[in-house]
Amino acid sequence: MRAEEKVLKDPVHNYIHVRDPLIWRLINTRVFQRLRRIRQLGTSFLTFHGAEHSRFAHSLGAYETMRKVLDHFSRNFGREWDERTRLAALAAALLHDIGHGPFSHAVERAVGWRHEEWTIRLLREEEELRGVLDAVDGRFAEDVAAILDGGSPHRILTSLITGQLDVDRMDYLLRDALYTGVAYGRFELERLIRVMSPGDGDVLVKSSGQQTVEQYMLARYFMYTQVYFHPVTLGSDLLIGKIIGRARKLWREGRLAEVPVFWSPWLEEGQESRGVLSVEAFLAMDDAVFLAGLHQLARSDDPVLADLSLRLLHRRLFRSVEVPGLTPEAERMCREAFERAGLDPEAYLGFHTAVVDGAGNREPVWLTDGRRGRINLFQVSALLQSLAPVAVTRIYYPEDLLDQMGERAKSIRALLASLAEGFPEQREEGGNVS
Amino acid sequence: MRAEEKVLKDPVHNYIHVRDPLIWRLINTRVFQRLRRIRQLGTSFLTFHGAEHSRFAHSLGAYETMRKVLDHFSRNFGREWDERTRLAALAAALLHDIGHGPFSHAVERAVGWRHEEWTIRLLREEEELRGVLDAVDGRFAEDVAAILDGGSPHRILTSLITGQLDVDRMDYLLRDALYTGVAYGRFELERLIRVMSPGDGDVLVKSSGQQTVEQYMLARYFMYTQVYFHPVTLGSDLLIGKIIGRARKLWREGRLAEVPVFWSPWLEEGQESRGVLSVEAFLAMDDAVFLAGLHQLARSDDPVLADLSLRLLHRRLFRSVEVPGLTPEAERMCREAFERAGLDPEAYLGFHTAVVDGAGNREPVWLTDGRRGRINLFQVSALLQSLAPVAVTRIYYPEDLLDQMGERAKSIRALLASLAEGFPEQREEGGNVS
Amino acid sequence: MRAEEKVLKDPVHNYIHVRDPLIWRLINTRVFQRLRRIRQLGTSFLTFHGAEHSRFAHSLGAYETMRKVLDHFSRNFGREWDERTRLAALAAALLHDIGHGPFSHAVERAVGWRHEEWTIRLLREEEELRGVLDAVDGRFAEDVAAILDGGSPHRILTSLITGQLDVDRMDYLLRDALYTGVAYGRFELERLIRVMSPGDGDVLVKSSGQQTVEQYMLARYFMYTQVYFHPVTLGSDLLIGKIIGRARKLWREGRLAEVPVFWSPWLEEGQESRGVLSVEAFLAMDDAVFLAGLHQLARSDDPVLADLSLRLLHRRLFRSVEVPGLTPEAERMCREAFERAGLDPEAYLGFHTAVVDGAGNREPVWLTDGRRGRINLFQVSALLQSLAPVAVTRIYYPEDLLDQMGERAKSIRALLASLAEGFPEQREEGGNVS
Amino acid sequence: MRAEEKVLKDPVHNYIHVRDPLIWRLINTRVFQRLRRIRQLGTSFLTFHGAEHSRFAHSLGAYETMRKVLDHFSRNFGREWDERTRLAALAAALLHDIGHGPFSHAVERAVGWRHEEWTIRLLREEEELRGVLDAVDGRFAEDVAAILDGGSPHRILTSLITGQLDVDRMDYLLRDALYTGVAYGRFELERLIRVMSPGDGDVLVKSSGQQTVEQYMLARYFMYTQVYFHPVTLGSDLLIGKIIGRARKLWREGRLAEVPVFWSPWLEEGQESRGVLSVEAFLAMDDAVFLAGLHQLARSDDPVLADLSLRLLHRRLFRSVEVPGLTPEAERMCREAFERAGLDPEAYLGFHTAVVDGAGNREPVWLTDGRRGRINLFQVSALLQSLAPVAVTRIYYPEDLLDQMGERAKSIRALLASLAEGFPEQREEGGNVS
Repeated sequence: MRAEEKVLKDPVHNYIHVRDPLIWRLINTRVFQRLRRIRQLGTSFLTFHGAEHSRFAHSLGAYETMRKVLDHFSRNFGREWDERTRLAALAAALLHDIGHGPFSHAVERAVGWRHEEWTIRLLREEEELRGVLDAVDGRFAEDVAAILDGGSPHRILTSLITGQLDVDRMDYLLRDALYTGVAYGRFELERLIRVMSPGDGDVLVKSSGQQTVEQYMLARYFMYTQVYFHPVTLGSDLLIGKIIGRARKLWREGRLAEVPVFWSPWLEEGQESRGVLSVEAFLAMDDAVFLAGLHQLARSDDPVLADLSLRLLHRRLFRSVEVPGLTPEAERMCREAFERAGLDPEAYLGFHTAVVDGAGNREPVWLTDGRRGRINLFQVSALLQSLAPVAVTRIYYPEDLLDQMGERAKSIRALLASLAEGFPEQREEGGNVS
Repeated sequence: MRAEEKVLKDPVHNYIHVRDPLIWRLINTRVFQRLRRIRQLGTSFLTFHGAEHSRFAHSLGAYETMRKVLDHFSRNFGREWDERTRLAALAAALLHDIGHGPFSHAVERAVGWRHEEWTIRLLREEEELRGVLDAVDGRFAEDVAAILDGGSPHRILTSLITGQLDVDRMDYLLRDALYTGVAYGRFELERLIRVMSPGDGDVLVKSSGQQTVEQYMLARYFMYTQVYFHPVTLGSDLLIGKIIGRARKLWREGRLAEVPVFWSPWLEEGQESRGVLSVEAFLAMDDAVFLAGLHQLARSDDPVLADLSLRLLHRRLFRSVEVPGLTPEAERMCREAFERAGLDPEAYLGFHTAVVDGAGNREPVWLTDGRRGRINLFQVSALLQSLAPVAVTRIYYPEDLLDQMGERAKSIRALLASLAEGFPEQREEGGNVS
Repeated sequence: MRAEEKVLKDPVHNYIHVRDPLIWRLINTRVFQRLRRIRQLGTSFLTFHGAEHSRFAHSLGAYETMRKVLDHFSRNFGREWDERTRLAALAAALLHDIGHGPFSHAVERAVGWRHEEWTIRLLREEEELRGVLDAVDGRFAEDVAAILDGGSPHRILTSLITGQLDVDRMDYLLRDALYTGVAYGRFELERLIRVMSPGDGDVLVKSSGQQTVEQYMLARYFMYTQVYFHPVTLGSDLLIGKIIGRARKLWREGRLAEVPVFWSPWLEEGQESRGVLSVEAFLAMDDAVFLAGLHQLARSDDPVLADLSLRLLHRRLFRSVEVPGLTPEAERMCREAFERAGLDPEAYLGFHTAVVDGAGNREPVWLTDGRRGRINLFQVSALLQSLAPVAVTRIYYPEDLLDQMGERAKSIRALLASLAEGFPEQREEGGNVS
Repeated sequence: MRAEEKVLKDPVHNYIHVRDPLIWRLINTRVFQRLRRIRQLGTSFLTFHGAEHSRFAHSLGAYETMRKVLDHFSRNFGREWDERTRLAALAAALLHDIGHGPFSHAVERAVGWRHEEWTIRLLREEEELRGVLDAVDGRFAEDVAAILDGGSPHRILTSLITGQLDVDRMDYLLRDALYTGVAYGRFELERLIRVMSPGDGDVLVKSSGQQTVEQYMLARYFMYTQVYFHPVTLGSDLLIGKIIGRARKLWREGRLAEVPVFWSPWLEEGQESRGVLSVEAFLAMDDAVFLAGLHQLARSDDPVLADLSLRLLHRRLFRSVEVPGLTPEAERMCREAFERAGLDPEAYLGFHTAVVDGAGNREPVWLTDGRRGRINLFQVSALLQSLAPVAVTRIYYPEDLLDQMGERAKSIRALLASLAEGFPEQREEGGNVS
């Protein structure tokens, strides 16, 4: 009887297969279990109610996909890595997101963290995790980190985690599509893996797999335009920034009566930069702590902070208007109009420009065939060439407050209308799809 | 141009259709938005990692299913209710779960609440919700409550929310199956609705739909045995009870240094029975507040409370052994063995008996056909008759602590082994499926 | 670089993986390619229009499932067969249906063939196929045949092709469910395989897999009651028997002006029993030849044969009435009533009794667990015990002709009504589902 | 109780809903039932074995999609047509493919028919069908024909059957994707319908639906490149042309000993153009008659015709090599090389150029929004602009014969290699996917 294979039921891959005891032990660390309390898509659940899944599920899926890719490389191309390197690659795929905090992109923007750095720091410093990794050997944690941060000699393994054809994206597109309920993110995972082969430092793609890769790249494009950059989600992220901004201001001025439990790293500027943010404090920060803190802030004496917090809890979000672009002058005019109307622009006015690069930053994707050698897919695919970066700029504001203000809001409305001139009407904020 | 139909993308029903402005306003109340922060399946996500969906999504699905059933009754049988009653039925389906708290079944057991009562209380007392309902008319809230609690003259509407063929179950089976990733809960929803017809006070089923109903009942049976009553989930629920029990004890004895924010209703016994639990306090209790509180308790001076809290946060769960049954004498022996070994049985020993009644309490399901009048499906279906209630009893305990105790755990192990004699070995705790 | 793995895209299994050149060569034989022209579900496409798939697709699926089961036995239990036996098992799964003719069950009943015998005969006698098998060695064809007919010492391999847990059924339930569009046939294939283990001569099932097997058995039960034994399909099969019967009668009497091409084996009784049916003649018989022949028969001088043939081509099927049972006396009365009304009962009256045994003939399914040894699932599963064989008897007749006959049909109608007394009204013939 | 709604179970749409008795009667005509015997994708089942579905299923799906679109226009925009026009639109969607013969594209090319003309001719001339249509009124058949051929004043209805956003394509993309097993053809049908609105003579699309339409257009592009124009399928079509060509030649020269039953329209040139092809003869031509005829031709005295026929029956297809283009001179050189080697180029050499226009001939798709009026999607979508027509040229030949010819094939091989210079290696002919 063999070492038992463990399986975890998964709605995307059917089963996650775990054969290596190391992987099982990593899954059971507190660092990894914490990912259950961090939503994969941040505030997207306020737009697509099904998108309530966690980074825990996604991380398992990224691991499973890496397992399948390495299995394919070994089975069909005889490309094997030594056992230790194979484990490091699987561990890197599993752990690539451990440095995320709650509502990561929104909060990171507000407080200036980088989740990639925290992932590496946890790999090095968190005791339990380090213990599991050190049980392989004393260099193992560093080798996992090197695959993640690009310092590894196994460039191809790094590219499988953060490249055009990486297991991170392969899992999240399928998973986010399933949970949101949209068809946009679907692509042929098994065929994509089949057309991939291991090159020297890169993944190569059989030329007959061109359309398979195109479909996968388009899945990404559609998920960005339809889901990740949905104006309601961007507005929710912006609201998180407003809440943290207001709370920080009050705290700095000594006017925040009650600091929500475990929130101090978000309030005290520079904890991170001064290196005083401990691993323990970091690990306590998850979606639950963030949302529970909002309940506390919603009872704040400061009416603005209370209002902003309740907006997120009760989904009374800002509305947006799309504009052709924004000059500093236009931004200033908006701020002044808000101030004149008695609305603090720091709290109630937001500008946001989203840039979708459908082509994933144009990093090459190498096609090969027996006769022609290798060629960059971007050179031969008119479809991918067409995916130029597109910038969309929006102004966010609380439509409900404007309604209540009546006449006083008139000049704000006139200004917004003139800035949006000639642009499509905003999507209704109501449903999640127009 | 008509009153616009709003839609919400949903992974189960594809779209949730909202045409009535009342329903839209109800969705936007804080009472309903709060359901986003309450997991549909409580601690099941610790067993099936995909099961992270909320009661918000399920409630929308129950509403959508009710909409489809009423539409079918109207379109194919000409059975219409007056507009006000139709809206009440839709509202009742949408709001049927608003009285749930976090980890509902586990916590309710620990503190003695009933979510059905809270649903009614919120309908009557919560100001914002009441305002939306009163805008129909002053009796409307009571009529919605009556459909939910069985006091309505429209018995068939009540049965569509809590009967053998109810929209609650129809949605949750499909939704929980999708999110956990198991196929067990699937049944033919559209065909089930098609074979249903409106009787006087009951739903009737065409006799040719017998197998369709059987499949639906079996979906329920399988979901209970495979998912809802999974031993790991039951053990997680039991752990929640232990945590609350320990915290209450310490609080009562004045030894709980820090009360987690918004936790007092769970600690002070009898808040509910004495009627002192306010609507505001109730609404603050959600999964986030519960889990954030665990972080606080995990830092408690009391090592037992800290350990129990960390067990849930880090998924270091109790293990279980299945036993043929338990006499009071056997329970006493277990407790004494734990005490002798220095383990507090209040904290570390649990007994649990799960009773699955595959037939859903045997309430009749009425088949009809032109010639024979109506007949109870339970009389003619050998399949359903076979679904007798089955009780499974398990003893829960911390295997890891026993491991650390070495020799001291010997008599506990011997006792558990003797009680489990002749029973199947426990499923491995590791994966979520054996 | 390895021997290349070939894949075939499949809507059920996603990909069929072919690594052994032998399997690829078998797929490319004319015997196997012929299965593309034989519908998997015979006349079911007249009831469920999606069910147009062939035995070719199913046979690939059975092979793929066998491949997965053997892989699981090897990977998780170290149970290996020698390479030659492994190939024989895969070949047996692939070829198990090659002896089927068009509309197999209906035609076999009419002319007295057995497809199992033809499968063996082709394995032994068809030159091209034999050549591929003999390339392994001169005993190989016999060893494949032995796995199929139960003569092999590897009893477990036979049971994997025709047992309670066989790859034939596993594929056809999923495939037929997909193509008909019903959810009834779905079960958890991957989990079912996972709970299976190799015993000495049998497949064993982990006791924790009880519900998985129950679900699979119920999938079979529902597919039989809802799809395979649908009254419209049974009536279509019966019509095929009537056509062949009429054509044979005319041929015997020298009144069949034109014998459809390649039809002689169906017309000349006893070709088979007298051993004069050649392999070549057998291989020419497929759905296309059968249906093209119907076009020829539809132009027959005999109005009855022409009418019956057009009925199948144009889907003007018989209607049925369900009766509690039929005595020889009752059958005689029906025949006489038809004769009196001028309708030939040989052509226009049919009796059919379908017996569904939900439990698949009660062959044991062995559960195992560490403590109790092995136990038959039928002993412990109340669900499976409830699946007693059920007989349903129906009388088939041409409702449209009765309509045209007006008064003359009165006594036929009265007789049918009295025989059906107390039974549910027939399903409407029109749609495929009531 | 209403006029009963009939339903047909469907793997794509779940149910096809039929409420209008006219539609039910049309489904039951022999003209429509004949479509059960004509594969939707012609020879594609030789490449993708799952693609065995018929035009019957697709036609029901096109009808169902039309029903949904008209329902959406009525419900959400109040756009109603009079009952008679609504029925004509539904009938046109249902009947749009009745003029197809077996392996339509391949055979049409060989014999010079146009299925669109046969559809109209059947509408006008086939007695049973005409009877059903005339029961509405004497102009109804013509009005259905007018919607199909563009002569109707209701231009928008025509565009819903043959336009960029037509129900024909909507159904076939989803259906062909399901049956082949590829994900490429999937798009969000319900959302696509939701963003459509009725303009004056066109369908309009909400500007927020741009990506939804792009996804749908790309589904078409991928299905063409990956499925419809798969080289193996194109080679199978080419083989059909070779068979018919050879049979015609022999027939013309009086050397075809046996004419397959019902095959004369394919053999006698100009039956169609001389108007001598009767409706009866046309209706007898289906896949079954075609394939049964192949069995007859496979027994022909002419070895070439016998070989070609067996190639299709046993899937021994031609191989192809992709070339950058072909001059008449190059074609002549190929023919001569074949002749010199003793292979008849009429029978064994084929040239084929496939042109995929991903953008569906660039017909405009009109986006609208409140502010900007209407704009052609092709003007604003870089993605769609990138879908330029692409031509792929291939030479087909029997690799197996070349193998047998040894040295004699050397110059053919050299020629093919030189023509293919610099082009990707051909996909292996073996599996259906590379």
